[in-house]
Amino acid sequence: MILDLSATAADLTASLVDVESVSGNEQRLADEIHAALAGLPHLTVHRDGNAIVARTALGRAQRVAIAGHIDTVPLAGNLPSRVSGGVLHGLGSCDMKGGVAVALRLAAHLAAPSRDVTYVFYDGEEVEAERNGLLRLSRSSPELLAADFAILMEPTDGQVEGGCQGTMRAQVRATGERAHSARSWMGRNAIHEAGAILDVLRGYQARQPDVEGLRYHEGLNAVGITGGVAGNVIPDECVVTVNYRFAPDRSVEQARAHLEDVFAGWEVQVTDAVSGARPGLDQPAVGSFVAAMGGTPRAKLGWTDVARFDALGIPAVNFGPGDSLVAHAPHEHVRLAQIEDCEARMRTWLAA
Amino acid sequence: MILDLSATAADLTASLVDVESVSGNEQRLADEIHAALAGLPHLTVHRDGNAIVARTALGRAQRVAIAGHIDTVPLAGNLPSRVSGGVLHGLGSCDMKGGVAVALRLAAHLAAPSRDVTYVFYDGEEVEAERNGLLRLSRSSPELLAADFAILMEPTDGQVEGGCQGTMRAQVRATGERAHSARSWMGRNAIHEAGAILDVLRGYQARQPDVEGLRYHEGLNAVGITGGVAGNVIPDECVVTVNYRFAPDRSVEQARAHLEDVFAGWEVQVTDAVSGARPGLDQPAVGSFVAAMGGTPRAKLGWTDVARFDALGIPAVNFGPGDSLVAHAPHEHVRLAQIEDCEARMRTWLAA
Repeated sequence: MILDLSATAADLTASLVDVESVSGNEQRLADEIHAALAGLPHLTVHRDGNAIVARTALGRAQRVAIAGHIDTVPLAGNLPSRVSGGVLHGLGSCDMKGGVAVALRLAAHLAAPSRDVTYVFYDGEEVEAERNGLLRLSRSSPELLAADFAILMEPTDGQVEGGCQGTMRAQVRATGERAHSARSWMGRNAIHEAGAILDVLRGYQARQPDVEGLRYHEGLNAVGITGGVAGNVIPDECVVTVNYRFAPDRSVEQARAHLEDVFAGWEVQVTDAVSGARPGLDQPAVGSFVAAMGGTPRAKLGWTDVARFDALGIPAVNFGPGDSLVAHAPHEHVRLAQIEDCEARMRTWLAA
Repeated sequence: MILDLSATAADLTASLVDVESVSGNEQRLADEIHAALAGLPHLTVHRDGNAIVARTALGRAQRVAIAGHIDTVPLAGNLPSRVSGGVLHGLGSCDMKGGVAVALRLAAHLAAPSRDVTYVFYDGEEVEAERNGLLRLSRSSPELLAADFAILMEPTDGQVEGGCQGTMRAQVRATGERAHSARSWMGRNAIHEAGAILDVLRGYQARQPDVEGLRYHEGLNAVGITGGVAGNVIPDECVVTVNYRFAPDRSVEQARAHLEDVFAGWEVQVTDAVSGARPGLDQPAVGSFVAAMGGTPRAKLGWTDVARFDALGIPAVNFGPGDSLVAHAPHEHVRLAQIEDCEARMRTWLAA
């Protein structure tokens, strides 16, 4: 099969879904995309592993990057795709082959866009950061990603979502003293002590700050807990793993200081953290896109690769078909009309 | 080597410690004990795997069982034994080769005790119940264990300790609803919910009931906790494993009902339970032993194999050299004079 970029964005999405591309298994889909774009005279195509970068070079005053990952989370009995009542069901239909289809259609059919465009299709987004194709490109070939503005085609239900929240995981450790459980009063139970950590979490009031006009919504949650030595031993350690989702008005360092403050009295060990991205809606390049797409921009609460563009100094927003609430769910799906609508609006903006 | 039962109980204990007999590896020590007892004309010796039963048959009005396990917990850099300042250090010195030495000395040298005696040396006490040699004997040859009274030579610091507490483990389950941790308010966090279970444990007032004149001390503790799905998921389950140590005035069924009452509102699943043993100090056979040993009997808080004798209808007490607080510790040890003293007192009682 060679992808048929003359098919509608809806049909093209179904074709993309039916080429299984669970993270680590992107090669066939990358080959198809590479083959479909390589023959187009208005594009210069680069390949880095299973990431494809295709650029126009029209000498326009502005350049926009339009990016989407081509991998998916693991199979959940949801392939091949099926269409029912105008809705496409299947693995990756929502996250984010609908957005990839829109970008491929624009790449194929807009030979002379009003802004130069860099299309980026990349691998390894649904797994650990070190496998992320956009991160790899940003290290190996940052010049390929250079742009005034980036659009990440993550599912946003066809609304512009600005920036993203950061995320930090930390281990909060309660300690005690071991003893035989038949004489528990000789020791100090670290699991019971961890109850005080959970009390802090249960009483926590999450911030909902406005950042550049968008309202974010933080969260601080236990995502893991482990403790215990043996069935007859009072345990001397209990570790609560917490996940702090923080608005982009806080840096990673500020987030860390906040956790140390909230859990004063316990050992706090940050295990991983990535900063968020400010929405950048005050940038002119972003403003014109937001105005063209219509609607009221929202804050992006989940972390996305817009933060990687932000780290390169490129303002970025999320915009694409599909409802992020069903991303990663076995029943993920996307409305076909929304894919077509996203394509139409972006085509209008890029033609202007 | 053949064990030298003419050596002092102190020296014999050191010899027993130096024959490593971690649970599962008792054969060599069982062979040595078997060989040392087999030639004695006043004893009839039976063997069942690595358990040895040696009985006098003098037609006395009463029969007493004197029992000790020959296995130990795993090595902890504490072999061979060493003596320092009248104290023997080494694996099993406290739990319970000192008691085994006393029983072997009595078996060898009391050819005509005032009560018939059944000496029981058994394997597999420090591991799961199904490997316990006393349990195996009680099923295969209960007639070999028949007695009016039993003394289990567990370390009690040379004091009579009556009965033992029961022990029950249960899983108490908090549930919730999964969600992406970037939108935690869409779910319900089961680990946070488990904080309420820990609150119950932190506020729990343990009973300290008097049973037949002995004061027991219960305990209810978390010995394990586990919860969490992934670093970015609000978890829908958290399981707290609790260990309830209950006085012998409560049956297993009463203990279960108590846990269901304490944790009303959560799912409680009992995973294992063994009943305790009442002290039996009101039995005449027990009373004479207690009087002969002197001191004030105490309640045994940890579960011991006295409960197996109790289940056979045989009243039993714990009595032996060594401080149970150092049992299972790498630095376990026993005072040599206490071993000799225990032997002397029991010899006097059995000669009377």
